[in-house]
Amino acid sequence: MGTIRHITLPSGFVAAGVKCGIKASGREDLAVIACTDDASGALLTTRNQVVGAPVIYCRQVLPKGFGRVRGIVINAGCSNVCTGRAGLKDAAEMARLTAARLGCSPDKVLVASTGVIGHRLPMDKVRIGIAAAAARLGTDLDAEALRAIMTTDTREKSAVVQGRIGKARVTVAGIVKGAGMIAPSMATMISVITTDAAVSPALLHRALRQTAGASYNAITVDSDTSTSDTVLLLASGQAGGPVIRSAGSGEFKKFQAMLNEVCGELARAVVADGEGATKVVRIAVRGARTDREAEIAAKSVANSPLFKCAVHGGDPNWGRIAAALGKSPAKVVPDKLKIAIGGVTIFAGGMGKAFDLKKVEAHLGGADIRVDCDLGLGKGCFTALTCDLSREYITINADYHT
Amino acid sequence: MGTIRHITLPSGFVAAGVKCGIKASGREDLAVIACTDDASGALLTTRNQVVGAPVIYCRQVLPKGFGRVRGIVINAGCSNVCTGRAGLKDAAEMARLTAARLGCSPDKVLVASTGVIGHRLPMDKVRIGIAAAAARLGTDLDAEALRAIMTTDTREKSAVVQGRIGKARVTVAGIVKGAGMIAPSMATMISVITTDAAVSPALLHRALRQTAGASYNAITVDSDTSTSDTVLLLASGQAGGPVIRSAGSGEFKKFQAMLNEVCGELARAVVADGEGATKVVRIAVRGARTDREAEIAAKSVANSPLFKCAVHGGDPNWGRIAAALGKSPAKVVPDKLKIAIGGVTIFAGGMGKAFDLKKVEAHLGGADIRVDCDLGLGKGCFTALTCDLSREYITINADYHT
Repeated sequence: MGTIRHITLPSGFVAAGVKCGIKASGREDLAVIACTDDASGALLTTRNQVVGAPVIYCRQVLPKGFGRVRGIVINAGCSNVCTGRAGLKDAAEMARLTAARLGCSPDKVLVASTGVIGHRLPMDKVRIGIAAAAARLGTDLDAEALRAIMTTDTREKSAVVQGRIGKARVTVAGIVKGAGMIAPSMATMISVITTDAAVSPALLHRALRQTAGASYNAITVDSDTSTSDTVLLLASGQAGGPVIRSAGSGEFKKFQAMLNEVCGELARAVVADGEGATKVVRIAVRGARTDREAEIAAKSVANSPLFKCAVHGGDPNWGRIAAALGKSPAKVVPDKLKIAIGGVTIFAGGMGKAFDLKKVEAHLGGADIRVDCDLGLGKGCFTALTCDLSREYITINADYHT
Repeated sequence: MGTIRHITLPSGFVAAGVKCGIKASGREDLAVIACTDDASGALLTTRNQVVGAPVIYCRQVLPKGFGRVRGIVINAGCSNVCTGRAGLKDAAEMARLTAARLGCSPDKVLVASTGVIGHRLPMDKVRIGIAAAAARLGTDLDAEALRAIMTTDTREKSAVVQGRIGKARVTVAGIVKGAGMIAPSMATMISVITTDAAVSPALLHRALRQTAGASYNAITVDSDTSTSDTVLLLASGQAGGPVIRSAGSGEFKKFQAMLNEVCGELARAVVADGEGATKVVRIAVRGARTDREAEIAAKSVANSPLFKCAVHGGDPNWGRIAAALGKSPAKVVPDKLKIAIGGVTIFAGGMGKAFDLKKVEAHLGGADIRVDCDLGLGKGCFTALTCDLSREYITINADYHT
């Protein structure tokens, strides 16, 4: 039997996940992911104005969003949000305890928490958990580390890409948790990405921001933005080769492409595991006046409960798509608008078209739905990812108690 | 046995609703509501950029939103949206046929349609329906007229207010349809309001815009904005007394108050009948920097699927309220924020408060939920109305086929 590998696959990383009793279910709930030496680190956090203590702490440690980082400690089951000064103290203590075990200074350790808002962390359990995780750090507990950051997730979501940059054989790997409260306006949910590429911290941050626009920031499950969104990218540099320092270099472009691939896959996996989701829906808008307007229009469709219900019901309801585009602040001229589902044009010239209903219904019966909207007004384009809206979403979120 | 009265209760109005076969269910589906003479008329229509032929037609007839109007013909079962030139011709023909029966010029008759988007009206049925409705116009078919404009509505929604303006005994009455695709950004759904007050057309329009801000524009069921929203206010003037022409007069203020009462009640009724709704939720935001920011913040909570699910589950989940406020563009400072449910403060000073859980859960178990948010930043205030989000919403909207 082999061992599941992802975040420890790039050279220089170790991880562990343990059960310390924060989750009522008794499952894994605390993870430490670390580099064997200081790594380049880049951080993105939520744009919600209400943020958790771990987000406040991480912003203090990395005020510019990048720097030299050793690792991160993450717990699920309690998000440590709206917990006042005591919560901030708890977040700092988590970093301090982890740093002591890793043998680095506390400001090289980041913290992320996810779960119920408004409760203090059970720090007695957390302290034991950190000690246990730190003692077990290695390259054979990736699966436990990933399970330890999950909440309502039903699937373990990870991605690995390998390739050559110059002479170095480079690996980029990532994990992500998130299934609801997904409408990121900077990063999303909690995600850790590791790589053994050698990239300067500032450039690493640039690469992460760039990739987030088309991956983490392009997805929505329910239009709700979490208070705890955190994405951390760590680059150990242990693959060898010179440190990438120029955004114009071929090496950087190669690295960016690999990172885009990993983050794109992780973002898609979040949507596929969206609370109650049975289908992934890709809404590509082109022909907008600007890219920004394309994004607004695509997300207006992606967030429309009526559209998402229609997809769930397998109904080629272009009326709800046209209405969702039209209600957005992005410029829409019905006569210039074209809408296609599964590549079949169903709306053009201000009216529904005769189309092959069986073909479109067959497409809607699948798990990967494609909606293309051409606004016919310019060159702006954006692709948003969402899932359908099912009874199960309500069950999950009405029966979930604080 | 008496006769249900609302829109024909003000002097000078007649109405009828008939079954002409547009609705598959065979229920009433075409209504004519008219004044016995020309009335002052004020119109509000959707801000969606994709609009139906009836909206386009009404805007042509009343380019300023007000004028002299004889009546309106409304059908349900087919919204005549995205039907091209043919649909525009159909809308104009509906007005022309109705006007011929009412003995007025076609440009004094308005048209509204609601139902599925993208299908041509079955004009052969509509023609017969208009003739039948016009032949039956009177004061004993209000109930049929109201049923004829309903789609997924489960309740007949009407309101009547009476009072004195000067020496005249004035009645304001209204009906409304709407249960889903409710997030108006001007008017909402379809509503007709009749009054025998004497008000000039321009002033009537001012009164309607004013009232819409706190009623029709303050509600949301699902954040989706319809392509067919239409509100028509008709004033026959037959209650007697001088025509109200000054916005500063006591008479106008009295009229405005009565109109606010009717429209407030109709708006509340739409939310109470929201698709799948089991509870009405009033979200009052105060302490915002401006009224506009209060509206943005209140609607961000009102449109949050997670918040709406929590209300459905009876869970005092202030974390989801704080997160919904924080994700909005309205300024929010967690430390200054206060949140109360049912009058009980559950969040203040950046943290959850100890509170009487049984009392709050008892409040959440009722059908009228009150959430108060004080942002502590200024004097801006706004109250939004929404409903909870239930499995039934999904059932209605996933199983509804175009």
